[in-house]
Amino acid sequence: MLDHTHDPKRQSFVISANGHADFPIQNLPLGVFSPRGGEPRSGIAIGDKILDLPATLAAGLFEGKAREAAQAASGATLNEFLALGAGPRQALRARLSELLAQGSPEQDKVEACLHIAAECTLHLPARIGDYTDFYVGIHHATNVGKQFRPDNPLLPNYKYVPIGYHGRASSIRPSGVPVRRPRGQAKPVDAAVPEFGPSRRLDYELELGVWIGPGNGLGEPIRIDEASGHVGGYCLLNDWSARDIQAWEYQPLGPFLSKSFTSTISAWIVTPEALAPFRIPQPQRPEGDPAPLSYLMDESDRKEGALDLELEVLLLTPGLRAKGLPPHRLALSNARHMYWTVAQMITHHASNGCNLQPGDLLGTGTISGPDLTSCGSILEATLGGKNPVVLASGEERRFLEDGDEVILRARGRREGYAPIGFGECRATILPAL
Amino acid sequence: MLDHTHDPKRQSFVISANGHADFPIQNLPLGVFSPRGGEPRSGIAIGDKILDLPATLAAGLFEGKAREAAQAASGATLNEFLALGAGPRQALRARLSELLAQGSPEQDKVEACLHIAAECTLHLPARIGDYTDFYVGIHHATNVGKQFRPDNPLLPNYKYVPIGYHGRASSIRPSGVPVRRPRGQAKPVDAAVPEFGPSRRLDYELELGVWIGPGNGLGEPIRIDEASGHVGGYCLLNDWSARDIQAWEYQPLGPFLSKSFTSTISAWIVTPEALAPFRIPQPQRPEGDPAPLSYLMDESDRKEGALDLELEVLLLTPGLRAKGLPPHRLALSNARHMYWTVAQMITHHASNGCNLQPGDLLGTGTISGPDLTSCGSILEATLGGKNPVVLASGEERRFLEDGDEVILRARGRREGYAPIGFGECRATILPAL
Repeated sequence: MLDHTHDPKRQSFVISANGHADFPIQNLPLGVFSPRGGEPRSGIAIGDKILDLPATLAAGLFEGKAREAAQAASGATLNEFLALGAGPRQALRARLSELLAQGSPEQDKVEACLHIAAECTLHLPARIGDYTDFYVGIHHATNVGKQFRPDNPLLPNYKYVPIGYHGRASSIRPSGVPVRRPRGQAKPVDAAVPEFGPSRRLDYELELGVWIGPGNGLGEPIRIDEASGHVGGYCLLNDWSARDIQAWEYQPLGPFLSKSFTSTISAWIVTPEALAPFRIPQPQRPEGDPAPLSYLMDESDRKEGALDLELEVLLLTPGLRAKGLPPHRLALSNARHMYWTVAQMITHHASNGCNLQPGDLLGTGTISGPDLTSCGSILEATLGGKNPVVLASGEERRFLEDGDEVILRARGRREGYAPIGFGECRATILPAL
Repeated sequence: MLDHTHDPKRQSFVISANGHADFPIQNLPLGVFSPRGGEPRSGIAIGDKILDLPATLAAGLFEGKAREAAQAASGATLNEFLALGAGPRQALRARLSELLAQGSPEQDKVEACLHIAAECTLHLPARIGDYTDFYVGIHHATNVGKQFRPDNPLLPNYKYVPIGYHGRASSIRPSGVPVRRPRGQAKPVDAAVPEFGPSRRLDYELELGVWIGPGNGLGEPIRIDEASGHVGGYCLLNDWSARDIQAWEYQPLGPFLSKSFTSTISAWIVTPEALAPFRIPQPQRPEGDPAPLSYLMDESDRKEGALDLELEVLLLTPGLRAKGLPPHRLALSNARHMYWTVAQMITHHASNGCNLQPGDLLGTGTISGPDLTSCGSILEATLGGKNPVVLASGEERRFLEDGDEVILRARGRREGYAPIGFGECRATILPAL
């Protein structure tokens, strides 16, 4: 899948793209944006600009499969584009890489279709039909499990089943939309009865999101060797969690209101093609772990089904802001800490015949690394609130406070390739009503 | 809310409606149907006929708020209609009750808009954004809990929290669509490792479904005294469950693939107005149970927040069919066995700010009665498969077998009112792939 579009020497005539932390010409993610005063439409992030896709289409700059893809991407959501799958998406990428390159013969026409990103509003890139959250970050599952069951942190099913559950689609919001601290029922450990009030243990969760592409019909499972063809792209996902509400409500049917008040995603769909340089073999399973059941085994998935992506969590508090201090890095983790691959998540999800649809969103679950500097949730980083995080402002955090802003970032880096990023996934906590 | 539309003496010129088990003129549920060879459109069930709503609108038979409602109901889904709320819905009901009544001055025009129901195909009445399943059937929760924890069947949160979890929206299908037996991971009790294969413990679940009407914005809870205004209507829901998959997968995040292969609903939206005669006070909580927390307490909900609806489960097997025997009644239960009201479910769901949207579907969870003749699942009726159900054909059932058809029915009956029903919620099990 590696081709000239990945060439690290490739430059864009959009000067800000060259060396851009997130959006060099090697990335070309898709999203939906509104220019100031304009209607939502699809676009491509390139440096500090956004290429207006319908305008580029109207300018007659696409042909064949690339045109088919651009047409499908011309509504106010990218669902139809996601449904097309890899062929048209790759043709669109190849053409966009030509159009935006330094020396592009179409530079004048293309420039007329560019917007300044800072003047645009980003929207959800697709109508999310169903949202499913997995639990494939094994360090997270172990860390959280330890807080409940010190001797037996991982349940017996963990190494056989890519554990997942249904999440709430309606409350997913793009980066930048503030998050209202939820109210809910919780039972303090020393109380006889539960109370209803603002959550006191508000947390973030560092996850990758996976956009479903073509999907499957009801009753038609997806074979593991076909699963990667159903990935339409990736984003960052902050699965905000109210730990006190969660602890009280989650038995026996799982987390519900502790998660459904808001989930935040980064607004750009980073394509599988853009991430091709960062594919790696699945990490060796620890000695003694069972092999996956055969429906989840595939040689090509074993060889390149994992991703080497740095995942970062930053915290900007009112105190840091007041003192002009930079955000505090809460964690640096990596997508390689997933026990199951995205293909395994997809195949498992559809194994009972459940239909996945274009624009459905899968979350990986929190991806923590093996130590305290790589925890994808504050529950882990503070050992359940016991050891506070200390900030340069003198502030301490056991859980999130009102006015705190959490920023997630993802970055692919590999020798011989241009680094790319996902753009930010950020949101600020508003006080409870 | 009781008015002339509920008058039991009211008759329709559609003769089959008079005394109809489900759809007399006192009911008037809405749905989406296709006449033979035609496109999906909205309609009203009346006896053995369906009134074509867009055609009735085009014939100029609606004015004012009724016209507003009919216009909103004129697409291929009823989401826009559900968003309108009670006012226009009630106006539409009043006008439909006039138009379809015996002696209607518009009989000729209305008759031209009728289709023979048996010649039409029913569809899902709305695009379901999110589907949430509750667990408010206390006998079910107790029965199932006993199988896992004989001494402590109900968890400590049950009497404080209307327990619910997110379900899968994409695989909900209308009555009549067959259900493919799912494959999945399960670990037999005596096995060391799990196996992947067709479920051996396939079950139904008898539930009421609730269609959300106007709904709330993200971050804006719904007060308990406003909650009933967000109910757009009711249906039957069979939340098919693969118990062996469920037992192995559900810890710690809840049921997932054991439920998401298909859920079946009855196709007609029975309105709150049609059910008004069957509202009853909330049953007294058993001695010693805590009062609901204040955000879930409302005097009017206490007085008339529960429903007196007979709920029935029937089983038609290949053996019964071959011998010309009628379906076997597996259970006769009642919606009065809900520990929480629909208003409490809605207020709890939105209490953290989670936004409910028009066309979202809530399930009540399985509604079992207090004894073996009123179990809403076969898991309960056979005590986990131990005591088979014996049928008149000589067949036995511990769980569902291929070719079995499960039929759910609901019926409101009250002295002095016309009984109404929901139409059927039925589907047949196809063998696993």
